[in-house]
Amino acid sequence: MLLYENEQSGNCYKVRLVLAYLGVDYERRQLEVNDRSNRREVLGHLNPALRVPTLVLDDGRALPESNAIIWYLAQDTALVPSDPFVHAQMLQWMFFEQYDHEPAIAVVRYMRHISGRPEDFADRLPELERKGYAVLDAMEGHLADRVYFVGDGLTLADVALYAYTHVAPEGGFSLDAYPAIRRWLARVADQPGHVPIDA
Amino acid sequence: MLLYENEQSGNCYKVRLVLAYLGVDYERRQLEVNDRSNRREVLGHLNPALRVPTLVLDDGRALPESNAIIWYLAQDTALVPSDPFVHAQMLQWMFFEQYDHEPAIAVVRYMRHISGRPEDFADRLPELERKGYAVLDAMEGHLADRVYFVGDGLTLADVALYAYTHVAPEGGFSLDAYPAIRRWLARVADQPGHVPIDA
Repeated sequence: MLLYENEQSGNCYKVRLVLAYLGVDYERRQLEVNDRSNRREVLGHLNPALRVPTLVLDDGRALPESNAIIWYLAQDTALVPSDPFVHAQMLQWMFFEQYDHEPAIAVVRYMRHISGRPEDFADRLPELERKGYAVLDAMEGHLADRVYFVGDGLTLADVALYAYTHVAPEGGFSLDAYPAIRRWLARVADQPGHVPIDA
Repeated sequence: MLLYENEQSGNCYKVRLVLAYLGVDYERRQLEVNDRSNRREVLGHLNPALRVPTLVLDDGRALPESNAIIWYLAQDTALVPSDPFVHAQMLQWMFFEQYDHEPAIAVVRYMRHISGRPEDFADRLPELERKGYAVLDAMEGHLADRVYFVGDGLTLADVALYAYTHVAPEGGFSLDAYPAIRRWLARVADQPGHVPIDA
């Protein structure tokens, strides 16, 4: 398998993390996140949204969208609950991650830590920070009496939410007021086969 | 089942549409989208994101996130492909819908058509319109040689993308340059059991 990706992207890290948990070998091809001028040339025939990650299977079929990719890779493993309602709850948190979490927490990290021009985003940061802390509040409340996001074990909901939460401080978010999130981050990092984002 | 929803919301319409296709009876409870002051009181114990739609099953379990809800309702029907790769492609378009489509096309419709104060959003509209047309371009290219978004029949990918695309003109988006999208919209509206958004 060939993974079009970027090494700093949490969305791409989700895929690398699941492949590491599952012990699957694959090839990596890096795409720039600041200079996107070659995106249509490289990804145009593979992903209408021109984004990474995009996974290309050995038979040439391509699959975009981080959370769809990890669902495909892990569908028959313990990372995807067998109970249909718990499976739906896992998807609930994966949609929450893409709709509420990534557009605030990942975007602030990009602006402050990756873009190289944080001053260009100064007027957008306060609103995105407010949204980011609202997301962390929702996660903290949910995790207060839980070990993982859904069911009894680690699932793709944890993988999807771990990817940008554990690097939220790079965007300036403080996790000091979030003890349940910090305990859960340590628990995910302690999984057999876990790899860091910069591996 | 009890559906907390709003009658103008495309995200809620997805759930009503799937329930109509499946012929399932349910109860509806309306929540305001402009005045959200009662959200924590009504939804706090059901949905950490405090959003509609939230579905409550007869046994009291609650499920938020429109695309997770319709996945749960339709999992064993023809609306969800049995082939794992096509299932993953369906999820790909559902994540695209929540990450790219809804935050542009639904948000512009809200600002112009629902908020009652479009002038408050004047500075944000040009960028969101640009993103909305990029989404329509991606959909048009994909649909050019296809009948439905994935596989051979109507799936939840079509339901998810239909919800806000068919009312995109309420936000000022013109579909004149998108003949494949218009043919696909007519095809979805022609499904047995289909109901309009204002039913």
